[in-house]
Amino acid sequence: MLKTYMMQKREKIDEVIGEHLDKLKYPAVIAEGMRYSVLNGGKRLRPMLLLMTLEALGADESLGYSTATAIEMIHSYSLVHDDLPALDNDDYRRGKLTTHKKYGEAEAILIGDALLTHSFNVVSAGNMHLSGDKIAKLVALTSEYAGVNGMIGGQMVDIESEGKEIELPILQYIHTHKTGMMIKLPVEAACIIGEADAETTAKLTEYSELIGLAFQIKDDILDVEGEFEKLGKPVGSDEELQKSTYPQIFGMERAKEILEEKIDRAKTVAVEALGEERAAIFVELADYIGKRDN
Amino acid sequence: MLKTYMMQKREKIDEVIGEHLDKLKYPAVIAEGMRYSVLNGGKRLRPMLLLMTLEALGADESLGYSTATAIEMIHSYSLVHDDLPALDNDDYRRGKLTTHKKYGEAEAILIGDALLTHSFNVVSAGNMHLSGDKIAKLVALTSEYAGVNGMIGGQMVDIESEGKEIELPILQYIHTHKTGMMIKLPVEAACIIGEADAETTAKLTEYSELIGLAFQIKDDILDVEGEFEKLGKPVGSDEELQKSTYPQIFGMERAKEILEEKIDRAKTVAVEALGEERAAIFVELADYIGKRDN
Repeated sequence: MLKTYMMQKREKIDEVIGEHLDKLKYPAVIAEGMRYSVLNGGKRLRPMLLLMTLEALGADESLGYSTATAIEMIHSYSLVHDDLPALDNDDYRRGKLTTHKKYGEAEAILIGDALLTHSFNVVSAGNMHLSGDKIAKLVALTSEYAGVNGMIGGQMVDIESEGKEIELPILQYIHTHKTGMMIKLPVEAACIIGEADAETTAKLTEYSELIGLAFQIKDDILDVEGEFEKLGKPVGSDEELQKSTYPQIFGMERAKEILEEKIDRAKTVAVEALGEERAAIFVELADYIGKRDN
Repeated sequence: MLKTYMMQKREKIDEVIGEHLDKLKYPAVIAEGMRYSVLNGGKRLRPMLLLMTLEALGADESLGYSTATAIEMIHSYSLVHDDLPALDNDDYRRGKLTTHKKYGEAEAILIGDALLTHSFNVVSAGNMHLSGDKIAKLVALTSEYAGVNGMIGGQMVDIESEGKEIELPILQYIHTHKTGMMIKLPVEAACIIGEADAETTAKLTEYSELIGLAFQIKDDILDVEGEFEKLGKPVGSDEELQKSTYPQIFGMERAKEILEEKIDRAKTVAVEALGEERAAIFVELADYIGKRDN
């Protein structure tokens, strides 16, 4: 059920993102570069979380299309800038040339800047069916979670920590900020759009934090135990880069236990927030994150 | 009168920007880098235009502090990214090391991203004294004028045009977008905050377009006729970079006439919009832009 659900949502999301990008024409290299960077075959986990949450709250999913698009644009810009020579210096992503390899480095910097800037246009001008108060809250939340106190903060600490042995609180800061904030963002955004009450919002936020953390721990485990063919990247790259990970700090056995605990707790809070029926897809997603092999 | 006015506004603006930046602490390199990049002794022309317009509309200037801060953060991020090795590759700005020379290239990319992202937090979370509708409009306007259809579009076309002979429409696109949009932005933002009627907004927008263009034409003229000591940069650099300019396309004499026409028209529309008394500072500013020697 989850696989079909994810596929359907992904199709819808790519269609909606495409419509937003179609409106941009000039300068051609930016318009094309934005499209190239966003429509890259990604799983659309973040937009899916937003639509999934809206649906569970009984709200019309179309109310979330623009915000979901904006969040995916922010995720995409962060990959474009992350891949730059001064940062991770990657030539390929998902088997395609990275944006700077395709369009040039100056262009990739500007394409990333354009995606980030335009995401806020999509949240505001693209959301005029929502009240001004909701738009203001969505912009405040998005800019907080994507910025210095969120994703960018996590990226910076991650860069500073490479090659160093780091303490658990720093590792947790990197996990919760670099990837975690952008997984919380769509769930909390959906709670604003769908007018969830405070308790439901708190439970669903906890769910998103737990699956975000589980996702990261599973990544660390796969980096040690995964198969190259399935991962599409070399096994053991964390160790080579001297990145601190859960298996390295806790040992593999305990890391797997922690993963299991996070998944279990995520399923519990989802059911508490939504009841068993409406939580079904949230439970499946949590299990999927724990069991995935790529 | 203008000089005193500008100095007072600049002091106030630097204080307000400093307060916003003071709230950011971690990661230290980003918090410090944001401060270093924004508090750089700039003239604060854009924030000043916003406060000036609010005052002329009879609105409390404090209503514009956050939006003025956000606009200056966007202006600053654009300079940080523009100075990067892949773009203009500048080591100094206003006699200080550029951000990437001071903090490193990866850091400068993230510091720029953080400034851009945080500017939208300042416009939204920092503006909660304004209605949601006004915030939504300010975010939509800011992201439009700073993005692919605005400043970033202008930067991209400018980069693509270097070393080529370009037609007047392309030169005008670069001028109106690369610098012009960010000069229109504070004036139009003030019209939203101060609830100017449609006619006043249209006139003040025209004023801002005219002084933006005049600023650029004057820049072109100074690049040929200016004195190194006053400009703080080499005379003739446009010719060296094979940049198309007004004097090059129209000849120096006609370029000066066009400058004069733009300034005259700017003064006229300011008086039409505001009456002679309230327009006085707008008239002075227009004259200053035409006469400045740096």
